[in-house]
Amino acid sequence: MEHPENSKEYKGLTVNKGIEQPSIVNPYFKGRRPVRRQQLTASQYVEGIVKGDVTILSQAVTLVESVLPDHQALAQEVIEKCLPYAGNSIRIGISGVPGAGKSTSIDSFGLHVLKEGGKLAVLAIDPSSERSKGSILGDKTRMERLSVHPDAFVRPSPSAGSLGGVARKTRETIVLCEAAGFDKIFVETVGVGQSETAVHSMVDFFLLIQLAGTGDELQGIKRGIMEMADGIVINKADGDNAEKAELAARSFRNALHLFPAPESGWTPQVLTYSGFYDLRIKEVWDMIYDYIAFVKQNGYFQHKRNEQSKYWMYETINESLRNDFYHNPVIENLLKIKENQIQNGEITSFTAAKHLLDIYKNPQG
Amino acid sequence: MEHPENSKEYKGLTVNKGIEQPSIVNPYFKGRRPVRRQQLTASQYVEGIVKGDVTILSQAVTLVESVLPDHQALAQEVIEKCLPYAGNSIRIGISGVPGAGKSTSIDSFGLHVLKEGGKLAVLAIDPSSERSKGSILGDKTRMERLSVHPDAFVRPSPSAGSLGGVARKTRETIVLCEAAGFDKIFVETVGVGQSETAVHSMVDFFLLIQLAGTGDELQGIKRGIMEMADGIVINKADGDNAEKAELAARSFRNALHLFPAPESGWTPQVLTYSGFYDLRIKEVWDMIYDYIAFVKQNGYFQHKRNEQSKYWMYETINESLRNDFYHNPVIENLLKIKENQIQNGEITSFTAAKHLLDIYKNPQG
Repeated sequence: MEHPENSKEYKGLTVNKGIEQPSIVNPYFKGRRPVRRQQLTASQYVEGIVKGDVTILSQAVTLVESVLPDHQALAQEVIEKCLPYAGNSIRIGISGVPGAGKSTSIDSFGLHVLKEGGKLAVLAIDPSSERSKGSILGDKTRMERLSVHPDAFVRPSPSAGSLGGVARKTRETIVLCEAAGFDKIFVETVGVGQSETAVHSMVDFFLLIQLAGTGDELQGIKRGIMEMADGIVINKADGDNAEKAELAARSFRNALHLFPAPESGWTPQVLTYSGFYDLRIKEVWDMIYDYIAFVKQNGYFQHKRNEQSKYWMYETINESLRNDFYHNPVIENLLKIKENQIQNGEITSFTAAKHLLDIYKNPQG
Repeated sequence: MEHPENSKEYKGLTVNKGIEQPSIVNPYFKGRRPVRRQQLTASQYVEGIVKGDVTILSQAVTLVESVLPDHQALAQEVIEKCLPYAGNSIRIGISGVPGAGKSTSIDSFGLHVLKEGGKLAVLAIDPSSERSKGSILGDKTRMERLSVHPDAFVRPSPSAGSLGGVARKTRETIVLCEAAGFDKIFVETVGVGQSETAVHSMVDFFLLIQLAGTGDELQGIKRGIMEMADGIVINKADGDNAEKAELAARSFRNALHLFPAPESGWTPQVLTYSGFYDLRIKEVWDMIYDYIAFVKQNGYFQHKRNEQSKYWMYETINESLRNDFYHNPVIENLLKIKENQIQNGEITSFTAAKHLLDIYKNPQG
């Protein structure tokens, strides 16, 4: 079942180099000769994807992740041709600090949803990921049941880059997976940065995994993330820890009362479960399905997806405008100087900005 | 003491027109002849401000708020010359939904801090303010004791404009007020939008005024704002309402435990008070002074101010880049079309963004 491209060895070797170059022998490749492959056309990719060919899906994702302009153009063509087949899934964002038990939980959640049929893609956004350090092995190993499940497609985060870039690639990978018939999409992220906002902007339901504890364990969660959650689930509610988890759940429920109702009209729920012991997994998913039914009924489901699509256009534009400016070599040199002048009280923030903008717009001036 | 420019009548007439034009008779001015005034030089403004001349301070603020390029250039010169005299104050952001009793509270808070000496400036950020509709009269009337206090300077929000523009003007007005010897600065805002983030980025302490209630009263507070607060104070804790306020305070304290500790190392406090009956105002301010002492001691006070200065440079740059793009007439025309193509699943968000960026960068192409 597993194509060589999906094997750990193959991926571990090529994963940081954009997509593999089929016509060139990879000099890093030791052990066996790579298979020479024809570059597929956009239509061939689309045909393969729509048929549900996981190998071709996987190659297309690699194309999406490539930094080469030719690959990017081809990837966009493939994605656009896949758009008519996409959208027919539920997209679940799953966040939690390291140690909250995300991988084990995703393994249990995934098994649960696959019992009902359908296909599951597990994607990730982790802008800090350095795939060469073996985190793929980590991901695959930690999700031990999903990683060998015939109806699951587990793909680690695109390699390190700007958050915007990584998020875009994951978002586009969702389109490809949906076109390939995956009707459940999990997008995992760590609860320590702005990647939550990015995930929140591409999923239908945002699930926050928490632990019961003294508060110390919660330090890793960034402010503002709790308020994004459509559901908070307290993991490791088993054995001696069950009571503590219930107490934590009660605190979270009280806290959520203080927040204004989300735009969806849905009241975020707080549940306890155990990913490791497979306890109350069904309750968690019943909650998520309740939410989906609720927002499909009140129209918020489609409204949110439309808003998300527009959001990503604006995000892409804004990121590009900022990149052009801040990566301009003249500006790069001057930024530190201006920052120092501001800190020393020599100029205002506004004057500094204006100087830089003038130079950027009139490089000859 | 009150200069004609500060009188309600004078302000109500000129306030929406940028700064008054000294050499032209204001056609809207009825009742008495305006005083013809020479435009001051930057040095004259600075001299007057540093002497604590409130009339000149007020004129300089009007200059900051002007949209005319000449005025803006002069304003920047004045602000820069004031920078060496600025910074010596504590800056308090005060937020709360309409109805929370902000103005009454600020009146009480202001009286309290002025009892200890010093001078207080009360500024505001309200991007939606339409000053022609009499909100100045409103502000002045509601802060009835402060508005006639010789050591208080109450200035309403700069008139409607982009949030970035309004926020910048308020931030620059802080510099002018500090140079004029105001050692306490309040920046008021309504708890209903992104203006909180802007205020949070220019103050040392962010105070959130809440009401006890069923939760319904809290709907107006946007998500994420509670987590910005260095202190939450429950207003109207008087008479029959006192017990309910205490209960609300306890809920907020429990909720805050669930959040990670802020970067300052300070644990946000929750207190109850009554702005109208002047109850426990001292406790609120003792908390704020405790905070200031705490962060001055651990270095966070200066660190945060430095970060804020840099933040405003980047904000100004980013806003300018976005404005140039989105106000480009060709882009403005195409945006709606691209949005529709995205909604109809014809193109991806990324392709739409790329088309627009290509057109923007190569208008001839």
